[in-house]
Amino acid sequence: MAGYTFTPLTPTAFLERSAVVHGHRTAIVDGDRRFTYREFGERCRRLAGALTATGVRPGDRVAALCLNSHVMLEAHHGVPWAGASLVSLNPRLSSDEHAYIVRHSGARTIIATAELLDRARDVALACDAELVVAGGPEDDYEDRLAAAGQTVVPVADEAALVAVNYTSGTTGTPKGVMYHHRGAYLQSLAMAYHLGLAADSVYLWTLPMFHCNGWCFTWAVTAAGATHVCQRSFDPAGTWGLVREHGVTHLCAAPTVLTMLAAGHPGDRREGLRVRVATGGAPPSPSLLERLDALAMDVTHLYGLTETFGPIAINEWLPEWNREAPSERARLLSRQGVGNIVADRLRVVDDAGADVPRDGETVGEIAVRGNDVMLGYLGEAPPADDWWRTGDLAVMHGDGYVEIRDRLKDVIISGGENIASVEVERVLESHPAVLECAVVGRPDSTWGEVPVAYVTIRPGQAATEAELVRYVRARTAHFKAPKTVLFGQLPKTSTGKIQKGLLRENLRRSASAGLATSDDPPGD
Amino acid sequence: MAGYTFTPLTPTAFLERSAVVHGHRTAIVDGDRRFTYREFGERCRRLAGALTATGVRPGDRVAALCLNSHVMLEAHHGVPWAGASLVSLNPRLSSDEHAYIVRHSGARTIIATAELLDRARDVALACDAELVVAGGPEDDYEDRLAAAGQTVVPVADEAALVAVNYTSGTTGTPKGVMYHHRGAYLQSLAMAYHLGLAADSVYLWTLPMFHCNGWCFTWAVTAAGATHVCQRSFDPAGTWGLVREHGVTHLCAAPTVLTMLAAGHPGDRREGLRVRVATGGAPPSPSLLERLDALAMDVTHLYGLTETFGPIAINEWLPEWNREAPSERARLLSRQGVGNIVADRLRVVDDAGADVPRDGETVGEIAVRGNDVMLGYLGEAPPADDWWRTGDLAVMHGDGYVEIRDRLKDVIISGGENIASVEVERVLESHPAVLECAVVGRPDSTWGEVPVAYVTIRPGQAATEAELVRYVRARTAHFKAPKTVLFGQLPKTSTGKIQKGLLRENLRRSASAGLATSDDPPGD
Repeated sequence: MAGYTFTPLTPTAFLERSAVVHGHRTAIVDGDRRFTYREFGERCRRLAGALTATGVRPGDRVAALCLNSHVMLEAHHGVPWAGASLVSLNPRLSSDEHAYIVRHSGARTIIATAELLDRARDVALACDAELVVAGGPEDDYEDRLAAAGQTVVPVADEAALVAVNYTSGTTGTPKGVMYHHRGAYLQSLAMAYHLGLAADSVYLWTLPMFHCNGWCFTWAVTAAGATHVCQRSFDPAGTWGLVREHGVTHLCAAPTVLTMLAAGHPGDRREGLRVRVATGGAPPSPSLLERLDALAMDVTHLYGLTETFGPIAINEWLPEWNREAPSERARLLSRQGVGNIVADRLRVVDDAGADVPRDGETVGEIAVRGNDVMLGYLGEAPPADDWWRTGDLAVMHGDGYVEIRDRLKDVIISGGENIASVEVERVLESHPAVLECAVVGRPDSTWGEVPVAYVTIRPGQAATEAELVRYVRARTAHFKAPKTVLFGQLPKTSTGKIQKGLLRENLRRSASAGLATSDDPPGD
Repeated sequence: MAGYTFTPLTPTAFLERSAVVHGHRTAIVDGDRRFTYREFGERCRRLAGALTATGVRPGDRVAALCLNSHVMLEAHHGVPWAGASLVSLNPRLSSDEHAYIVRHSGARTIIATAELLDRARDVALACDAELVVAGGPEDDYEDRLAAAGQTVVPVADEAALVAVNYTSGTTGTPKGVMYHHRGAYLQSLAMAYHLGLAADSVYLWTLPMFHCNGWCFTWAVTAAGATHVCQRSFDPAGTWGLVREHGVTHLCAAPTVLTMLAAGHPGDRREGLRVRVATGGAPPSPSLLERLDALAMDVTHLYGLTETFGPIAINEWLPEWNREAPSERARLLSRQGVGNIVADRLRVVDDAGADVPRDGETVGEIAVRGNDVMLGYLGEAPPADDWWRTGDLAVMHGDGYVEIRDRLKDVIISGGENIASVEVERVLESHPAVLECAVVGRPDSTWGEVPVAYVTIRPGQAATEAELVRYVRARTAHFKAPKTVLFGQLPKTSTGKIQKGLLRENLRRSASAGLATSDDPPGD
């Protein structure tokens, strides 16, 4: 065996293959622009050449501040082909945050789409970085590509960085999660396999590509030789329009985005058109799952974190579950599931690191390990434990499926009792007037914390605070019912996650100003 | 990154996963026996324990002389879980050949199914190996499993051996092709992906499991959590019976087996029942492909060798090809295709190692490299060249698809002209009376070689030698038409390959006895 060398695993290999096999087929639709796989491959090789010409060297980082676009897909292949790793910036962060990430990652080049030019210019100036602009009157991306030679720097080590993805960090400074070629390759294969991506699939980019490299679908869709349809910014009407125009077969989105999508459905329905939808990032409620089913959307529930290349787990759907009643199907589907086909087994562990019993009752923390787990955080010591703790609290069911009870930080501790905010949210969301909601803890001098619900009411519907509190008390332990219900829109991250941290902070500020305490007992 | 350890890739990981996720679902049907995935997993861990108890140690080899059965599937997981690698014996080889392989591999233990007990006993005696018998009156397999503890020796190095597969070697001594865990893992993922294996798939074992580990479907079907249905020995009526009884969705078979299967179809057809069939090992003729299409069999054409974990290439079917006429579809499908999703690009090279032009005309040799190529032959020096030459002569088409013209050794050189035996066979097979055929070269004092055709006539049909020669001459260059046509059954290997070596040897023997020379010019 001495001297035997394997081909290093890298997710960009899929484009090398598809540029030949699917050469004349449509790789990307982005507004009026269309690219075949042959063109996609050539443009990425030219991008690698152009980056090399600007001084990018193997081992460097290159930042991208881009909407969902051909540019961002090209960056996912062209940057690694220059030997560099990709740092995707979330456009909704502030210029200061962008500058922090660019500086922290050491990126000296920023690729931006024209819509984000002002922001990108500020950051480039603050960091003294080279700016490459794609689209708009100041475009120099196309000229650079046209002038460049075609470059592919071979991957020498599959453990090398392919991307650094900064956690959204609603509190604290963002951390740079290090993705390796091997993990991105395997995770892409798993996504293509589990979602059934094939040459005739049409994938709609509702999920931001900057978010965990679009859960690795930037590479997985390419591996399948399917068509990427880019939606530069999400709005439900636009999504439904693209679904019809292009015969979309697959999309990914957080549950909050799916809630908006379901609410914004044009009403008529083209018969026979089914869309396979992967969702994750938060547990989808059974009521949302039932609504999507009615809209001919076949939901696959995934679970993961930035630290796990996106979806490390899948609610693997067993054929016999199709015979269950709709409510039971929704319950089964709302579980986070099992490690995906390339992942190690998920564990749920107690504080001492021992597995909790498989009883569907005992709450522990999800711990992960394996090929689709990050190398660690850039600039920090590598994780001490083999098993990385996710911060997600969950139970292990008898069939080996994991179900999240709550984020560790989202648990409300009231009078010494734990309240899983997700559980209360599930009950509220089953109320016909509730579009979506978030339950968080408000500091309370007597009980430590008490639950408060933020609720968005469905258009054309109505509900009072008293009615909703009664509704929850009738369906769960009384101490879990919200003490206060506040109505309005929920603040969200750019990836569609409800910003519970922000809600908690508001409550904390009000509480410390003495505006809100509760004399009600948390239970009765 | 120092100290970071990945989880080693191994195909047995799929059973660890399926034993949980698909625990209560049917893993194996073998005659009257049924095993769930939980049972399958436990039995394999017990097999590993039992092997350890007999003295098998990590790094050892264990031989299996088994028909397609639960025993052979268990060996594919239990042997690696004992830290050993599996040496699958082809039951049709002679006892001497078996003994050679067992000795050469260093195996000290042989697992046999009861049908092959006599043969296994001879070999065990000759090699002083421990014999484990599964089934029949002398079964000790079940007792050993029941008595054993559950063992899983972790894989320390994914480049380590998982199996040694001996080439069928119709001429010369068999060579031990070394399979590594990494390649078997990736190849299994590729098979599951390309064939669309899923939890509701039912896979019928017509292809022998001893042949390239059943093209890695022993692991791929397990990865999907699908059901393995074992057919211990192939006969067309039995196959059709199992297809109906179990609702088979997938099977693999060499073209000759499919020819028998198509000929043995019971005639009636259950509506809506489609079977996805993967074929390879020889180029399927367009006429066979058309017949299978009529029998509701969706054919995927794969290409590979023992040295490439079975199918390293796939005729990846592009959606737009469905709009082509049937004959054009058959022509497109008869090509060997492109590297599969985990494979490196296939090359077609000339004698100097340079790529031939992509013109669909220039013949070169297929060369392969990558993660699904063997480590080398056991006991031999590792291959000198990075690119392993397959011995298959092919052209590269403009769209990057490879098409085999012939095996290097099957080319007939007549009067200085090359005749691809496959080309002549294609023409003969398009004749309505021809069931199957083989064209080989007969030594000839004047022309070097001349083509001779061996033909099996379809039941109820008839054709004369003169008629078939005329038929070929009307459709190809005259010098390619057979000088002689011999009628009868074709000799085949246990994997269904026509034994052209045997036919050639017969002709050579007759020729040297002065029984057959030709005065006809090879061309006119």
